[in-house]
Amino acid sequence: MKIVIINGPNLNLLGKREPGTYGNVGFDDYLKLLRELYDDITIEHFQSNVEGEIVTKIQEAGFSADGILLNAAGYTHTSVSIADAVAAVPAPVVEVHISNILKREEFRHKSLIAPVCIGTITGFGLDSYRLGMEALRLHNAGK
Amino acid sequence: MKIVIINGPNLNLLGKREPGTYGNVGFDDYLKLLRELYDDITIEHFQSNVEGEIVTKIQEAGFSADGILLNAAGYTHTSVSIADAVAAVPAPVVEVHISNILKREEFRHKSLIAPVCIGTITGFGLDSYRLGMEALRLHNAGK
Amino acid sequence: MKIVIINGPNLNLLGKREPGTYGNVGFDDYLKLLRELYDDITIEHFQSNVEGEIVTKIQEAGFSADGILLNAAGYTHTSVSIADAVAAVPAPVVEVHISNILKREEFRHKSLIAPVCIGTITGFGLDSYRLGMEALRLHNAGK
Amino acid sequence: MKIVIINGPNLNLLGKREPGTYGNVGFDDYLKLLRELYDDITIEHFQSNVEGEIVTKIQEAGFSADGILLNAAGYTHTSVSIADAVAAVPAPVVEVHISNILKREEFRHKSLIAPVCIGTITGFGLDSYRLGMEALRLHNAGK
Amino acid sequence: MKIVIINGPNLNLLGKREPGTYGNVGFDDYLKLLRELYDDITIEHFQSNVEGEIVTKIQEAGFSADGILLNAAGYTHTSVSIADAVAAVPAPVVEVHISNILKREEFRHKSLIAPVCIGTITGFGLDSYRLGMEALRLHNAGK
Amino acid sequence: MKIVIINGPNLNLLGKREPGTYGNVGFDDYLKLLRELYDDITIEHFQSNVEGEIVTKIQEAGFSADGILLNAAGYTHTSVSIADAVAAVPAPVVEVHISNILKREEFRHKSLIAPVCIGTITGFGLDSYRLGMEALRLHNAGK
Amino acid sequence: MKIVIINGPNLNLLGKREPGTYGNVGFDDYLKLLRELYDDITIEHFQSNVEGEIVTKIQEAGFSADGILLNAAGYTHTSVSIADAVAAVPAPVVEVHISNILKREEFRHKSLIAPVCIGTITGFGLDSYRLGMEALRLHNAGK
Amino acid sequence: MKIVIINGPNLNLLGKREPGTYGNVGFDDYLKLLRELYDDITIEHFQSNVEGEIVTKIQEAGFSADGILLNAAGYTHTSVSIADAVAAVPAPVVEVHISNILKREEFRHKSLIAPVCIGTITGFGLDSYRLGMEALRLHNAGK
Amino acid sequence: MKIVIINGPNLNLLGKREPGTYGNVGFDDYLKLLRELYDDITIEHFQSNVEGEIVTKIQEAGFSADGILLNAAGYTHTSVSIADAVAAVPAPVVEVHISNILKREEFRHKSLIAPVCIGTITGFGLDSYRLGMEALRLHNAGK
Amino acid sequence: MKIVIINGPNLNLLGKREPGTYGNVGFDDYLKLLRELYDDITIEHFQSNVEGEIVTKIQEAGFSADGILLNAAGYTHTSVSIADAVAAVPAPVVEVHISNILKREEFRHKSLIAPVCIGTITGFGLDSYRLGMEALRLHNAGK
Amino acid sequence: MKIVIINGPNLNLLGKREPGTYGNVGFDDYLKLLRELYDDITIEHFQSNVEGEIVTKIQEAGFSADGILLNAAGYTHTSVSIADAVAAVPAPVVEVHISNILKREEFRHKSLIAPVCIGTITGFGLDSYRLGMEALRLHNAGK
Amino acid sequence: MKIVIINGPNLNLLGKREPGTYGNVGFDDYLKLLRELYDDITIEHFQSNVEGEIVTKIQEAGFSADGILLNAAGYTHTSVSIADAVAAVPAPVVEVHISNILKREEFRHKSLIAPVCIGTITGFGLDSYRLGMEALRLHNAGK
Repeated sequence: MKIVIINGPNLNLLGKREPGTYGNVGFDDYLKLLRELYDDITIEHFQSNVEGEIVTKIQEAGFSADGILLNAAGYTHTSVSIADAVAAVPAPVVEVHISNILKREEFRHKSLIAPVCIGTITGFGLDSYRLGMEALRLHNAGK
Repeated sequence: MKIVIINGPNLNLLGKREPGTYGNVGFDDYLKLLRELYDDITIEHFQSNVEGEIVTKIQEAGFSADGILLNAAGYTHTSVSIADAVAAVPAPVVEVHISNILKREEFRHKSLIAPVCIGTITGFGLDSYRLGMEALRLHNAGK
Repeated sequence: MKIVIINGPNLNLLGKREPGTYGNVGFDDYLKLLRELYDDITIEHFQSNVEGEIVTKIQEAGFSADGILLNAAGYTHTSVSIADAVAAVPAPVVEVHISNILKREEFRHKSLIAPVCIGTITGFGLDSYRLGMEALRLHNAGK
Repeated sequence: MKIVIINGPNLNLLGKREPGTYGNVGFDDYLKLLRELYDDITIEHFQSNVEGEIVTKIQEAGFSADGILLNAAGYTHTSVSIADAVAAVPAPVVEVHISNILKREEFRHKSLIAPVCIGTITGFGLDSYRLGMEALRLHNAGK
Repeated sequence: MKIVIINGPNLNLLGKREPGTYGNVGFDDYLKLLRELYDDITIEHFQSNVEGEIVTKIQEAGFSADGILLNAAGYTHTSVSIADAVAAVPAPVVEVHISNILKREEFRHKSLIAPVCIGTITGFGLDSYRLGMEALRLHNAGK
Repeated sequence: MKIVIINGPNLNLLGKREPGTYGNVGFDDYLKLLRELYDDITIEHFQSNVEGEIVTKIQEAGFSADGILLNAAGYTHTSVSIADAVAAVPAPVVEVHISNILKREEFRHKSLIAPVCIGTITGFGLDSYRLGMEALRLHNAGK
Repeated sequence: MKIVIINGPNLNLLGKREPGTYGNVGFDDYLKLLRELYDDITIEHFQSNVEGEIVTKIQEAGFSADGILLNAAGYTHTSVSIADAVAAVPAPVVEVHISNILKREEFRHKSLIAPVCIGTITGFGLDSYRLGMEALRLHNAGK
Repeated sequence: MKIVIINGPNLNLLGKREPGTYGNVGFDDYLKLLRELYDDITIEHFQSNVEGEIVTKIQEAGFSADGILLNAAGYTHTSVSIADAVAAVPAPVVEVHISNILKREEFRHKSLIAPVCIGTITGFGLDSYRLGMEALRLHNAGK
Repeated sequence: MKIVIINGPNLNLLGKREPGTYGNVGFDDYLKLLRELYDDITIEHFQSNVEGEIVTKIQEAGFSADGILLNAAGYTHTSVSIADAVAAVPAPVVEVHISNILKREEFRHKSLIAPVCIGTITGFGLDSYRLGMEALRLHNAGK
Repeated sequence: MKIVIINGPNLNLLGKREPGTYGNVGFDDYLKLLRELYDDITIEHFQSNVEGEIVTKIQEAGFSADGILLNAAGYTHTSVSIADAVAAVPAPVVEVHISNILKREEFRHKSLIAPVCIGTITGFGLDSYRLGMEALRLHNAGK
Repeated sequence: MKIVIINGPNLNLLGKREPGTYGNVGFDDYLKLLRELYDDITIEHFQSNVEGEIVTKIQEAGFSADGILLNAAGYTHTSVSIADAVAAVPAPVVEVHISNILKREEFRHKSLIAPVCIGTITGFGLDSYRLGMEALRLHNAGK
Repeated sequence: MKIVIINGPNLNLLGKREPGTYGNVGFDDYLKLLRELYDDITIEHFQSNVEGEIVTKIQEAGFSADGILLNAAGYTHTSVSIADAVAAVPAPVVEVHISNILKREEFRHKSLIAPVCIGTITGFGLDSYRLGMEALRLHNAGK
C-alpha cells in the first residue's frame, strides 16, 4: 500500500514559522515518526510552493497510489485547479490541516478542495496527518 | 479515561434514514464495535433532539469527562448556545460528521461549533467517530 | 387514514395572541370543526414550543401516520433539524401557515422546511389547515 | 360566482414539457375536470406568454370576477408589473404553482407576487389549482 | 409588583465560565443582592438551556407578572420563537446582556429579540440586571 | 415642438387604483389640463402594459419627437430592454414618477432607466409630468 | 412666500470645479437669474461645507420658510443627521441635484435624503433648481 | 435543415443604434450574406421587442426547426420565461451576442439563458451569428 | 463627581420633533429633573449638530470628567471619528438612545459607537439618560 | 498565419477525466484533426498546469502569433495575472471552454479573462476550439 | 514650494492616544523635525475634527499650495465630501496613514479618498508623512 | 544592507505594456537608476510570473536580506500563499504598486498582502519603489 503526502506552500517552513500556530517540529522529523508507525505502508512526501506542480503531482499520484493526504495550505481557499485535479483522479484524497482553519481569518474558512475529497481532518496539529493515515486505511479497508 | 459521545437531532434514526447519505448501520451497533476497539476507555453515549439538552449534557460532561465527541447534526449550523457550552467547559471537544457536509446544501457549509472545538473530522462515515477517538487519545497524550 | 397536525411554538396562544395577524379562534375550537368535516380521518394534534420535541414527534408520526400537517411557526425559518426530520420520514408532509409570511418581516420569508415538504399552503388563516387536509387526501389518492 | 384562472408563460406546453417536473396532463383536460367538480362556478381560463397581457387580464378580471387563480410561472420571480396589477384590483387573488418552487433553482425561490395575494399554494401538481378553488370558496364564504 | 428574570442557555455556569467575559460571581449570589435591594418587589428567577422552555415561561410570566428581564444568551441571535413569544404577551420585557455583545463576534451583533422589547441594556456586567429592574420600575411608573 | 408621454403598466388605472398612493384623478383628465397649459406643444400620449410595446414606442418617438416623458412604472426597476431603447434614440428622455419611489418598497429603489435619461423627476404627484414638460422645454432651449 | 436654497459641500466651487460635470456658471450668477424669474418669492441662499451647519439651517428654515430646495451634495449619500432634520421640520423640502447622480459612481446612487423629501429632481444642470422652484410653487398651491 | 434566428428587443435598430458598440450594418443586410454562405440551410428570421412573443416563437420553432440561434438582447439578463421556453423545447439552442457583454455594465454579466442553451458565442460582432450557424451544424452532425 | 451628557444632531428639537417617536418633553426640562435626582453629581450638558464639535467635546470631557453619557443620534450609525474619540479617552462612556433604534429603519440598526462604550441603554425614552446615570455610578463604584 | 492554443490545468487529462463532462477524446487526437482542417495555419499547442507558465506563454505568443485560443480551465475564474497578460499583448485572444461553464458550479460562472478577450465560445465540447479557429480567422480577415 | 499637511479628527491627540497604535510622539514635535529636514519647503499644518472644515481647507490649499498631505483619519472611510474636494482642486494630494489600516477593523479597509489622490502611503508610523513629502517632491519634479 | 525587490507577473513587460497605466520605462533601466541612488545598499531584483516561485523567493530573502520590496501585481488580490510567506519571515516587507490600484477595477481594490506588510506605497509610478527604499531605510533605522 502506497500513500502520497502532498504539502502545499510554506509547509517547508514548518518548525521555523509562527510556532504558536504551527508548532516547532519540522515536517521531515514528523515524517520519520509517521514511517515508523506505518512501516507496512510506503509513504511518499512531496512539497511545492507552486500550485501547478501540486496539480501535476495529484494527477500522477492519483492514478498510481492508494491514497493521497493533501494539505494545500494557502491554495485550499482559492485553487479551482487543485480541486479539479482531485476530482479527476481515482485515488481517495483526504484533506488535512494542522491548525483549526475555522478559528482563523475569514478567508481561510472556505475550502474549495473539501467538497471533492472523501473527508477532512482539521486542527489536530501534526497529528492531523496521522489521523489522515488512519482514515485512508479505514477507507481502503471498507471498499 | 472517559469519553462522552454526544449525538444531535435525527442521529437516533441512523440506519433507518437516507442510507445513501448516512449508511445502514444503527449507532448502537457501531457503539458496540467502538467499545470493543477501545476497551480501556469508558465510552458514554448520549443522544437528544433537543438543543438545550445537548447544552446541558456538554456542561455536565465537559467538567467530568476526559473528552467529548460531538456530532451536533442540524444544530451544527445554527446553535450559538451549543458553541457557547463547548467554549465554557475545560474538556477537549472534537467535532465529527458522518457525511462530507461541504458536499451538501449551502446551509450545511457553515459550522458555528468548529471554531471552539480543538479539531474537526468530516466525511468518513461512522469511521469519523473512530478517528475522533484517536484524535482525543492523541490530544490527551500530548498534553 | 390518520393525519397528525404538528403545531410549533406560540401556536398554543392562538385566539389570545395578536388577533390582527392570527384571528381570535383558539386551535382547539378549530380542531373540533376539522374533525367534524373529516370524520373518516383520525386527526391527532400535537403542539410544542420545543424544537427537539417537534423533531421527535415528526420521527414518530412520520413512520406511523398517513400524513403530517406541519406549522413549524418560528422554527420554520431557522430549524435545520426539523427539516432533516421531515426529509428522513416516509409520510408526506404538508407545510401550512396561518398568515401570509411573505407579507411580514424579511426573516420570515425564508422557509428551511418547504423544500423537503410535498407542498406549502400559506395565508388562508385557519383555513390553511383545512386546505392542507384536502391536499394530503388528494396526494394519497394520487399515489 | 365566477373565477378566472390566469396562467403565465409556457403553461400552454403543459403535458408536452418536462413531464418529470410538470406531469403529462395538458391544462385543457384538467380544466374539464375542474369544471365538473365545481359546476356551480363559472371558470374562465386565460393563458398568455406576454407579461403585459397578463397585467391587462388581471385588471379586467379583478374588477369583474369573484376571484383569480394566478400562476404567473416565470414572471412570478421578476414582474413588478403583475404584482402591481394584483395590488390594484379588489378581487381576491390566490397564487398557485404546480411544482414546489422552493425545491428548484435559487432564482425561483423569490416571489414578487406572493406578498400581494391573499395566500399561496405550491407543490401539489395540478391539484394546486383545485386547492386554490377551495381556498377562494372558503375565502369568499368567510367575508 | 412581580418581576420575572428569565436567563437563557449557559447562564447557569456564571461564575464558573470564562470569567474574563462574564465575571466570577454566580447568579444565585447576585440574585440575593438584587432581592435585598428591591425588597418591595417579588423577583422570580428561571433559567433554562432549552429554547422552547423559555418560550413557555415567557408565555406564562407574560400574562401574570408586571415585567420580565430577559437575557436570552445564545438564543438572542437566532430565536424567532422567543421573539414571537415576547411580542405575544402584554407584560413589558427588557432585554439585558452581561457583556457588550457588539464588542464580540459578528454573529452576536444581531438581536432578534430587541425589536420586540421595550428597551435593551447591554454591557454593564451583572449590573445590567439591576439597571433592568430600574428600567421596569420607571416604565411601570410612567404608564 | 412635439413631446410624447409614455406611460407604463397599470397607469391606465390612475384614479381607480390605490388613491392614497396615486391620487384620484385619471390620466385623461390630467392630460387635458396639460394640453391647455402647453398649447404650443403637441403632446401625444401612449400607454401600454406590455414592455415590448413600450420599447417599440420609444424607438418610434425617439427618432421623430422632440422629447419623451417616460413613466415606466413597474418596468422601471427591471427592464434592460426599455433602458436600451432609451439609450438608442436621439430624443431627450425625462423619467417621471408620480409617487416618491424611494419611500416605498426596497425593490422600487433601483431604476435601470435613470442612468440613460437626461434627468429624473420623482414624487410630485401628477405635477411630475408638468415639471417634466418644463424640463424638456428648458433642455431643448439650452441646446 | 419665502424659499431657502441650501447647498452642501463643494457647491461653493461651482464654475471652478469639474466643468464637464457641473458646468461653468457660478451659483451666484445663477441665483441672480433665479431671483429675476421668481421676483414674487424671497429666495434665501445658504451654503456650507459642514454637515452640522446644514442640519442647523434646515432646523431654522424648516420652521420659518415656505419651502426648502436642498442639494446636500456629498452628504446626500451618508448623512442620517440631515435626513433626520428634514423629517423633523414642517416645511416641504425638495431634493435637487445638478448632475444625474445615477450615471456616476456607485456610492452616489443611494440617497438617504430622498425618502424624507416630498420629491427629487436630478440631472438637469442648474435648471434643477428652477424646476425645484416650480415644484415647491405647485406643491404649496396644491395644499 | 432549417434554422431559426430569434432576435430580441432593439436589435431591429442594428446599424442605426450606437455603432461603436453594435456596428453599422443592419441585420437584413447581414442576413442576406448569411443565406448566401449557408445556401443549403433554410434560415428563418424573427425579431420582436416583446418578451412573450419571443417565448411563443421559441415554443413554435423549438418543436419544428433543427436549431435556434437566440440573441435575447436585454431579456438575456432578466427573463426566466425565455429560459423556461428554451428548456422546454427539443431543438438545440445556441446563445449569441454581438458585443462582449462581460466588458459592459455589471447587469449585463449574468445570463439566465446560457445555462439552458447548448453553448454561447459572445463578442464577435455580427460574426457571432455565423459562428453560431457553424456551431449548430457541428452539433447536429455530431448527434 | 462630574458627568457630561453629550447630545448629537437634532436632539435640540426634542419636544418639538416627531413626538410619537421622541416624546414631548424638551431636554432642558428633563435636565432639571435629572439634576434634582442626582444633586451630588455635577451634570454638564452639551449639544451640537456638528460631528467634529462632538469629537472635540468628547476629547475634552474624556480627560476631565468621571463619565460621559453619549447620544450621538444620527452620527451613531456613520461616525468613525466619534467612535475613535471615545476609544481615545480614559473616561467611561455610556451610549444612550431615547427610542428603540432596532425597531426603526435598517440603517439605524448598526452602531459604530457601541463597541467602544462600556455599555448601551436603548429604548426607555428620556429615562434612558437616568438609567445611564445609574450605570455610570455603578461602574465607577465598581472600579 | 500562426495560431497558438494555450490549455490550462488538467486539460492534459482530457479523455481520461470525467468523460461525462469532458468527452473521451484526448487533446492530441483532436489537435491532429484540427491541423488537417486548417492546413494553411500553423497551430502551436501549449499546455501547463502552472498559472505563471501560462502567463509567460501568453506574453511570448501574444507578441509573435496571429491569435491565441485560450482555455484557462480552473484559472479562468481566479487569475488576475492571466487576464493581465491577455490585456498586455497585441494578438487577439479568444476564450474557449469545452463544457457550458454556466451550467456548472457557481464558482465557475465568473470569468476574469472574458472581459479582456475579443470574444468567448463556451459549451460545444472540443468543437469550441474549431469555432475559435473560425472566430480568429474571421476576426483577422475583418481587420 | 509650499506643502500643506491636513490632519483629520483625533490626530490632535497623537502622543496621548492609544500609543500601541499611534506611537507616543505628538504631531507638533514631529512637525519640527519635518521642517528641519525640508528647510527649502514651506510646510503649513492644519488640524480639524470637523469634516466640513477639512473640505474648506482642501479647497483653499488646493488652489494655492504645491501639494497636500492628507490624513483624513476617521473621515477616510465615509466622507464623500472630502473626496469631492480633493477631486475638485488642481494641487496634487497624497493620502497618508500612520497605522496600517488594512490590519485593523473591517470598516477601516475602504478609503473613499484614495481613488482621487495621486497615491497613498500607509503604515509607516509618523514616517508616512516624511515619505509623503518625498512623494510630492518627486511628483512635482516629474511634472 | 541588502534589499530584495520582488516583482510579480507581467512586470517583465514594463515599458512594453499599456504605457498609459504603467509608463514606458522598463524595469531594468529604472533599477540602474535606483542602484545609483542607493549605492550603499545591495539591491537584488527577482521577477517571476509563477506564484509559487515568488513564495520561494520570499522565504529565501526573508531570512537573509534586510528588507523586501514586494510588488505582487496580479497575485496581490488573490494569493493567500504569498501573504502566508510574508507573514512567515522575519524581514520587513513593504508592498508597492506602480498604479493607484484603488482607481482601477473593483477586483484590484482588495490586497491580501497589505495586512501582513509593514506598510504600503501605491500610485507613484516607478517612484513607488524609490519611496519603498526610503521606507525600509527609515524602518530599519528606527528599530
